[in-house]
Amino acid sequence: MALAGGIGGARFLRGLRLAAPDAEITVIGNTGDDISLFGLRVCPDLDTVMYTLGGGINEEQGWGRADETFTVKEELAAYGVGPGWFTLGDRDFATHIVRTQMLAAGYPLSAVTEALCDRWKPGVRLIPMTDDQVETHVVIDDPDKGRRAVHFQEWWVRLRASVPAQSIVPVGADDAKPAPGVLDAIRDADVVLFPPSNPVVSIGTILSVPGIRDAVAARTVVGVSPIIGGAPVRGMADACLTAIGVETSAAAVAAHYGPDLLNGWLVDEADAGVEVPGIAVRSRPLLMTDERAAAAIAEAALDLARELDKDAA
Amino acid sequence: MALAGGIGGARFLRGLRLAAPDAEITVIGNTGDDISLFGLRVCPDLDTVMYTLGGGINEEQGWGRADETFTVKEELAAYGVGPGWFTLGDRDFATHIVRTQMLAAGYPLSAVTEALCDRWKPGVRLIPMTDDQVETHVVIDDPDKGRRAVHFQEWWVRLRASVPAQSIVPVGADDAKPAPGVLDAIRDADVVLFPPSNPVVSIGTILSVPGIRDAVAARTVVGVSPIIGGAPVRGMADACLTAIGVETSAAAVAAHYGPDLLNGWLVDEADAGVEVPGIAVRSRPLLMTDERAAAAIAEAALDLARELDKDAA
Repeated sequence: MALAGGIGGARFLRGLRLAAPDAEITVIGNTGDDISLFGLRVCPDLDTVMYTLGGGINEEQGWGRADETFTVKEELAAYGVGPGWFTLGDRDFATHIVRTQMLAAGYPLSAVTEALCDRWKPGVRLIPMTDDQVETHVVIDDPDKGRRAVHFQEWWVRLRASVPAQSIVPVGADDAKPAPGVLDAIRDADVVLFPPSNPVVSIGTILSVPGIRDAVAARTVVGVSPIIGGAPVRGMADACLTAIGVETSAAAVAAHYGPDLLNGWLVDEADAGVEVPGIAVRSRPLLMTDERAAAAIAEAALDLARELDKDAA
Repeated sequence: MALAGGIGGARFLRGLRLAAPDAEITVIGNTGDDISLFGLRVCPDLDTVMYTLGGGINEEQGWGRADETFTVKEELAAYGVGPGWFTLGDRDFATHIVRTQMLAAGYPLSAVTEALCDRWKPGVRLIPMTDDQVETHVVIDDPDKGRRAVHFQEWWVRLRASVPAQSIVPVGADDAKPAPGVLDAIRDADVVLFPPSNPVVSIGTILSVPGIRDAVAARTVVGVSPIIGGAPVRGMADACLTAIGVETSAAAVAAHYGPDLLNGWLVDEADAGVEVPGIAVRSRPLLMTDERAAAAIAEAALDLARELDKDAA
């Protein structure tokens, strides 16, 4: 089983599915960057996993739908209705319309996600970390408005993380409960994998839901570094790490997770030789240039997990 | 000022605007056929008026947007989410998304309609008949499910009015209040026009909102027959008239409105010679083949209204 954020997580999972075709894979998805736009509930990370594993993703971009059009967005703009900085395509809108309608009818997000996956058949069981609302907020010093908290997406997408984050807070996490099935899936897992997702706003947010971190810590946990040679492979994880006082390096991220949580850590060849006390580090190429490359990384993670298997020990 | 249903009403209004370019025209729109689809609030008649007068209508079809695409609908179908029998295009979806978002934020439908018209600039003041929910239901003998009430749109669009209506009821009308501005606009009007809209489910529904019928009856009222030579010009008004026991003829519709409400009545040349006690009938060509033809009909209606002017009498 795996915890997952967006693009990096989804691509890793596609490799994992290829590497372990007979495994029952459960994915706990981050919902901290969910946002309501135009009255519709948007779950970027869940959708990226669903579209990527379901064959509907825009491959080049890594998020959103393939063969996408933007008529609805243009029309909303013609009505003067924004925000314009968050791009939603017509195909994507349909997902949010179905989700919002089901949520309004009283279904929890986990049931909605299952219903959406009925179409996409991602080949994994995708569960949101929680059915409760957890919203990642970023405290920034806004050049115009002074210090204020903004929704993660406003910082990430609108500001491109160009304004330093003073802090990053998963608002609502303290009172959130793991979604049905989450703790059971972790408890029953042979191994828990951390894909090369953002350690702060993806994996970190999932772990902030009470109960998840402890459940994960009881399992064999192997992670894949999202940092290669001191820089994030993609995205702006460095800006997030800086905000929580962690150096942007493969070793620092592993140390941030800590040996009580993380047992094995895959780093890129560029980081070969890195050592983290209490954590078994292995180096190999980590660029997921295609599905095969992602599968090879997943295989290496599974190999390391078997080597470190807590139950077998 | 005018009461208006969908296509016929909208085309007449476009003619009226051309015929009386300096007049302040207020249009009271029917909302009885509004429906919630996919969690979004759809107001077919208001939108047809808004799009037609705003230059966004699909001219051939008479409803919906020009240059429309249907990606969202296809995606919803891929999720197995219906109904499939109600066609909504991508451009149209944006209107419903904006409307639903504003309604959810607490704005009444009249304010929402005004905001949408800010974009379309229809050149008339468009007010829904009420901000309360009035929903036209049709009682049918369903071949499969026995006698039951269905939403007007299900009867009209899904069943194409092919199943006889046992009765047609504007559910909620008794408790509805006219939207702000409706009664004032009627009171201040030089003339109230009934476009060739459906006398039962368009004009009839508007008149069913308490207060509107009495306010209209106090004014000079001239109507344009939607029936020519015993058949509706378009739509299935005959099925609606039959349901309320009114013959499908220009004379019967005028008599149904009655001389206490209707002062003047324009019928087509095909119905020349028709007489209705207490109502001044004039005949002329009534086919709105283009905007000019619609304007000529509107001019004739205004001429007849001046002739019958209650205030001048």
